[in-house]
Amino acid sequence: MTKRPVKIIDTTLRDGSHAIHYQYSVEDVKNICKGLEESGVYAAEVGHGAGIGGSTLQYGLAKEADRDILTAAASCLKNTKLAVLLVPGLGTMDDLKAAYECGVRLVRVAVHCTELDVGMQHIKLGKELGMEVAAFFMMSHMISAEELAEQFKIAESYGVDFIYMADSSGAMVPEEITKRVKLLKEAVNVPIGVHCHNNLGLAVGNSLAAYESGADFVDTTLQGLGAGSGNTPTEATVAAFNKMQVETGCDLFKLMEAGEKYVRPLVQHSLEVTNESIILGYTGIYSSFYLPTIKTAKKFNVNPIDVLVELGKRKVVGGQEDMILDVAYELSKRKDV
Amino acid sequence: MTKRPVKIIDTTLRDGSHAIHYQYSVEDVKNICKGLEESGVYAAEVGHGAGIGGSTLQYGLAKEADRDILTAAASCLKNTKLAVLLVPGLGTMDDLKAAYECGVRLVRVAVHCTELDVGMQHIKLGKELGMEVAAFFMMSHMISAEELAEQFKIAESYGVDFIYMADSSGAMVPEEITKRVKLLKEAVNVPIGVHCHNNLGLAVGNSLAAYESGADFVDTTLQGLGAGSGNTPTEATVAAFNKMQVETGCDLFKLMEAGEKYVRPLVQHSLEVTNESIILGYTGIYSSFYLPTIKTAKKFNVNPIDVLVELGKRKVVGGQEDMILDVAYELSKRKDV
Repeated sequence: MTKRPVKIIDTTLRDGSHAIHYQYSVEDVKNICKGLEESGVYAAEVGHGAGIGGSTLQYGLAKEADRDILTAAASCLKNTKLAVLLVPGLGTMDDLKAAYECGVRLVRVAVHCTELDVGMQHIKLGKELGMEVAAFFMMSHMISAEELAEQFKIAESYGVDFIYMADSSGAMVPEEITKRVKLLKEAVNVPIGVHCHNNLGLAVGNSLAAYESGADFVDTTLQGLGAGSGNTPTEATVAAFNKMQVETGCDLFKLMEAGEKYVRPLVQHSLEVTNESIILGYTGIYSSFYLPTIKTAKKFNVNPIDVLVELGKRKVVGGQEDMILDVAYELSKRKDV
Repeated sequence: MTKRPVKIIDTTLRDGSHAIHYQYSVEDVKNICKGLEESGVYAAEVGHGAGIGGSTLQYGLAKEADRDILTAAASCLKNTKLAVLLVPGLGTMDDLKAAYECGVRLVRVAVHCTELDVGMQHIKLGKELGMEVAAFFMMSHMISAEELAEQFKIAESYGVDFIYMADSSGAMVPEEITKRVKLLKEAVNVPIGVHCHNNLGLAVGNSLAAYESGADFVDTTLQGLGAGSGNTPTEATVAAFNKMQVETGCDLFKLMEAGEKYVRPLVQHSLEVTNESIILGYTGIYSSFYLPTIKTAKKFNVNPIDVLVELGKRKVVGGQEDMILDVAYELSKRKDV
C-alpha cells in the first residue's frame, strides 16, 4: 500500500529566529534558503519570529528589514515556495503586498485560536494577489477540539487553501493530537497541518501522530531551532518519514548538511528538553516566554519554575510577555517577607 | 474511564552511566536514589552501563565497585525497588547472588534479541533467589515483530515476570512500536515494557505509543541522560502521562528537582538530537557507539556521519566497538588516495 505523501514547511528562518533574537543576516538567509531548495522542502517561511512587520521594540528588533531578507530568500528559491507568516495587527495589508512583490507566494495568516475574524481581510488579499493562503491557529491547546473545529470551518469559509493547528506551547500529547486531527479532518475539506514544539520532548512524535491521523503538512526547523526547547527538527522528522516510507520530497543528507553548516553555528542556547521547557508545555505557556523568563528570574533571584507555574495559572498568551516581570517581581517580594 | 497505570523503571544510574563514562560516585548514587525514592518511581536500576560485571577494559572501567554502589543504593531505597541489568557473559551467576545480598530485588537479564538461551540459567537463579525477573531484548529492531514475539514466548516459558523490548539504537518510529507492542501483548500473558532512545527525537513519543498499545512498563532516565542523544527523559515522560491522566505513581516536581540537582551537573555532552544521533537511529546502530565514533572520527580526520553510515551497513551490534576504528581507518586511507 502506498502511503500519502506529506508536505514539509520549514520555518527555520521565521519561528527559528526567536531562538537567535531575530539576528539572521542576509547571508544566513541566502545560505539556509539554498540548503532548503537543494533539499527539496515544500516551502521555506522567512521573516521575524512574529511574522512580517514583527520587528518592533515589543517583539524584538530584527537585524535586517523584511524586504531585504525576503528579496534575498526569493533569489535562492525556485521549487521551494517562499512563505511568510502574518499576524494581523503586527503585519498589515501593505506588508503583505510588499512581501508579494519580493516574491512571496504563500502566506500563513496567524491568529490566536479564537480570533480569525481579524485575519479575514488579509486572507482575501492574499487570494486576490494569487498567493497560496493558509490560516494558522496559535495556542490551539487553549480551546477544545470541538471549538477548534468550528474555527477551522470559519477559515475554510474564508477561502484558505489549507489550515494549521499550532501547538505553540508544546502542550499537547500524541493522544490529544490524534483526537484533534481526526476531528479537524472531518470538519473541513481543505488540507490541514500541524506546528509542534518540543517542550515535552514530543515534537517529532506529535508530528508523526498528526500525519498518521490525516494531517497533510508538518512544520519543522533545521536542527530544531526555535523558542523553548525548539520546534520539530526537520532532519529527524524526514528521517522518521523515510523509515515509514512516507514521501516528503526531501533529501535527508542535504538537510543534515545545511543544518550543520548554516544553522548549528547560530545556536545560542541548548535545545535540550529542560525543566523549564517541560513547565512551558505542562502548563501551556507560549514557547517564546522561555528565554525571557529564565533571564528575568535570574535578575530577581527567583526560581524560573515558580515563575512559569504562576504564569501558567494566569493563562498568559503571546504579547503578554510583560507579565513575566510582574510575576518575577511579586515572587521576589514574597521571598523578602 | 480510568486508564491503566504505567510503571516507570528509572535507569539513570545504569544506562545513564554510558554518557558519563561510568563515573558515578557512591555519593551520586545515594543522592539520585533518594530523589527517585521520594519521587515514587517503581524501580531504580543501578550499575555499569553494561550491567553488573560490566566494568571491564573493553566496556569501560567504572569509578566504583558494583558492591559499593549497590549497597549505597539499597540504603536509600524503600518503596522503590533496587534493580540491576545482567548481560550473561559479562555478569555471572555469582554476580547475581552478590547483587541479591546487597539488596537487589529485580534483575533484568539482557540479551541480544535472538539469544535468550544464554540467559536461561540467570533467569532461573533470579527466581530461586525470590527476585522479580525480567527478560530484556536489546537491539530489537534487528528482527521482525513476529520473530521478536517468538523470543517473548520463550522468555515467558522460562518463568520471567515481565519482558522488555529495547530499541537500543533509537531506530523505531511510533508506527513500528505500536505494531510490535500489539503483537507482543497477544503473544504473551506477562506484562511488557519498552526501553527507548532519543536518537530520532522519538523517545517520549515512542514510549507513549507503547503505552497506548498496551505496554505496562517504560524505561526512563532523569534529564534523558544516556548514550547517543539520550534515553527517554523521566521528567517529560511523567509530565506527559500526567496530561493523559495515566497514573505513574511519580511526583513530577520532585523528579525535576532531583534531575536538576544531582544529574544535570554530571552531564558531559549535549543530549540534543544531532546529525550523528539521527544516523544512529536511521541506520540502527547501538547508541553507545555515539561518543566513541565522534572521538575516533576526529582522530582520523574523517566525517563521523560517513563512519556511522558504513557501520550501519555492516549491521554492527554492542561489543563490536572495535569496528569503529577499522572503519575510520579505512575511510581515512580512501581519502588519502
